[in-house]
Amino acid sequence: MADEEFVVTPYEVRGPVDHDRLREKFGAERLTPEILEGIRSVAGELHPLLRRGIYYSHRDLAALLADHARGRRFFLYSGRGPSGPLHTAHLVPFDLCRWVQEKFDVPMYIQITDDEKFWFRPHLTRSETARWGWENLLDLLAVGFDPKRTHVFFDTRSIAALYPLAVDVAKKVPYSTVRAVFGFPPSQNVGLVFYTALQTVPCFYPSWVAKRAVPCLIPCGIDQDPHFRVTRDIAEGLGYPKPALLLSQMLPGLLGGRVMSTTGDGRDNALFLNDPPKEIDRKIRKAFTGGRASVEEQRRLGATPEICSVWAAWRSKFAPDEAEFTRITEGCRQGTLLCGECKGMLIERVQGFLEEHRARREKVRDYAASLIIDRPPEGAEAPFPPTGGAPASSAGPDGD
Amino acid sequence: MADEEFVVTPYEVRGPVDHDRLREKFGAERLTPEILEGIRSVAGELHPLLRRGIYYSHRDLAALLADHARGRRFFLYSGRGPSGPLHTAHLVPFDLCRWVQEKFDVPMYIQITDDEKFWFRPHLTRSETARWGWENLLDLLAVGFDPKRTHVFFDTRSIAALYPLAVDVAKKVPYSTVRAVFGFPPSQNVGLVFYTALQTVPCFYPSWVAKRAVPCLIPCGIDQDPHFRVTRDIAEGLGYPKPALLLSQMLPGLLGGRVMSTTGDGRDNALFLNDPPKEIDRKIRKAFTGGRASVEEQRRLGATPEICSVWAAWRSKFAPDEAEFTRITEGCRQGTLLCGECKGMLIERVQGFLEEHRARREKVRDYAASLIIDRPPEGAEAPFPPTGGAPASSAGPDGD
Repeated sequence: MADEEFVVTPYEVRGPVDHDRLREKFGAERLTPEILEGIRSVAGELHPLLRRGIYYSHRDLAALLADHARGRRFFLYSGRGPSGPLHTAHLVPFDLCRWVQEKFDVPMYIQITDDEKFWFRPHLTRSETARWGWENLLDLLAVGFDPKRTHVFFDTRSIAALYPLAVDVAKKVPYSTVRAVFGFPPSQNVGLVFYTALQTVPCFYPSWVAKRAVPCLIPCGIDQDPHFRVTRDIAEGLGYPKPALLLSQMLPGLLGGRVMSTTGDGRDNALFLNDPPKEIDRKIRKAFTGGRASVEEQRRLGATPEICSVWAAWRSKFAPDEAEFTRITEGCRQGTLLCGECKGMLIERVQGFLEEHRARREKVRDYAASLIIDRPPEGAEAPFPPTGGAPASSAGPDGD
Repeated sequence: MADEEFVVTPYEVRGPVDHDRLREKFGAERLTPEILEGIRSVAGELHPLLRRGIYYSHRDLAALLADHARGRRFFLYSGRGPSGPLHTAHLVPFDLCRWVQEKFDVPMYIQITDDEKFWFRPHLTRSETARWGWENLLDLLAVGFDPKRTHVFFDTRSIAALYPLAVDVAKKVPYSTVRAVFGFPPSQNVGLVFYTALQTVPCFYPSWVAKRAVPCLIPCGIDQDPHFRVTRDIAEGLGYPKPALLLSQMLPGLLGGRVMSTTGDGRDNALFLNDPPKEIDRKIRKAFTGGRASVEEQRRLGATPEICSVWAAWRSKFAPDEAEFTRITEGCRQGTLLCGECKGMLIERVQGFLEEHRARREKVRDYAASLIIDRPPEGAEAPFPPTGGAPASSAGPDGD
């Protein structure tokens, strides 16, 4: 085969990912200038993650924006599977969600899937994934969500709220679909086989509560698209709207490579939100760049930002100001900004961000638990104990 | 093949079931006179379901009784998947449990698996299985369990209590096991694939609460054995004792045939607890018997109780007194008790039972909901929000 092959599922990223081919493989749409203009016309600007192409694909976003223009409010949903500390690339969906929440004035639902990560990770205990879930939740809320419009499903704490819809969803999802979509082997545990039903629930939850169709927008990494293909296939059969998706590329790691992975010795591949300032310094200093072999050569020929992990960090998070980002990019390309200096600037920027982030994180601690939905909404379900005696119908033709 | 083939799983009974071969196929033990004597030595007597061989197989019952003799208390667990009204054969596990509860002075856990039946029955809604669950629960409690020592898991109402252990169990159960044990096709929905984890939870729950190994005894139909084979395979790996099983034969239906089925037009195959007196009369009058072609022939040759559905009803429930049961059996065999008279006696007995049952059923209505466990036990889990910061370990070698 001419192309190197790659595999992307929510549970595996293997081989050199080509994001354009991945989008086509998944059958998702390209994020066009027209759609970006639709967002800009409401928000008054575009978030750097949008204008710089990190979000690059979508499903049904044009229709969602058209509905919004007609006064039909949507809600945001994104999530995190907690198996360790967050790094800055984990914030990509949440940075965008926070911005959309503010600009479009919409509610946000965050799902912390501690059950999923327990099922997926052989060596983690349920108590460890729950504790990481709590630590991750504090980080995500510290991004700056409006606590009055932000709701959290913390799977093992929220199961009473999630389960009724998960039961409905699970009935519609055959094992063969899960096997095909996620590529699970027969040895996969039945928890993870079931799990996609739980990841679908937040897409439908606000409609279930409101007893009318409430559109859903999910900003997430394109690796999560398979879950929501399952969701979209069954949504209408259950009477819910298909969620719209806004899909981002996966970011490269600090050590080079097209997609970040913190597998194995990969802790140096990412900037973790709990890294102390000295660690940030050390990691960025050893990060892979697009620089030349010598200073002299770089001054003469310039460097290549597109392959540089330091540039990727500026691009995705640390240089939101467009003028500054252009200065960095052009300085790199023209050989006027050398890697050492560029790294020094980034170290300072990241250290400053983390200091502020940690201060915000301490503040969300007071209310984080209160955002967790822990019971089904009043009145969404039939009363219990049931009134009016036995149902008219029983199992009937296939009853026992 | 010389033998007619049969298949028995919790989800399918097909072909002419040979209970002895089924027991061997499943690898369960024969219920020996020694074990029955062990029960009698505690209870002072044997329940008719035991002394008449309807319970005929077990797993680890001898060890459970030996533990009991040494002062180690067990608990009882049995359940019901609610998809319609109960018939008298559904009471086989619960009649025995009630008796064991009284004689051994032990707690009883009843599981109502409304989620399972919703996943299994294409045409039932979640609200219907919940309503049947409630109706069935009233019938089961009316059997006479001690409300102070009886606890109910009603799956969709109890999920917050069940889920933590179900998550632990599900991680240990590969899809391939479920496929092999239940014979599920790839089109089986992921709800039912996951479900066996929930049926395992009550086996471990009292140990989880008490933080020590509490033995479990499950009286149930042998068709449920596959679920608990899965449970027993994983129990010790999770630090819980393997549940002991007491397995009954499946009862024949009123219309003949070795195993009762109420499939299709099968409503006349069973005596439902909500049948009005006239229905009981009609059904028993048309029931299959072991009688001869003519009264004259029957008086001369006698009849065959072993193939008679009316005799099966006396045997399993309606003639608990051994002297009376012997009179009926011998009268039948010798041709002194004719089918019409025998049916008349049974009609009266069943109608009387149902009248009393319904009176008891109205009384349990007051407290039935209060027996449902709807949250995890205090202190069984680590506190939430977690204290003490992030865990020492993260996903590590395979982290993301």
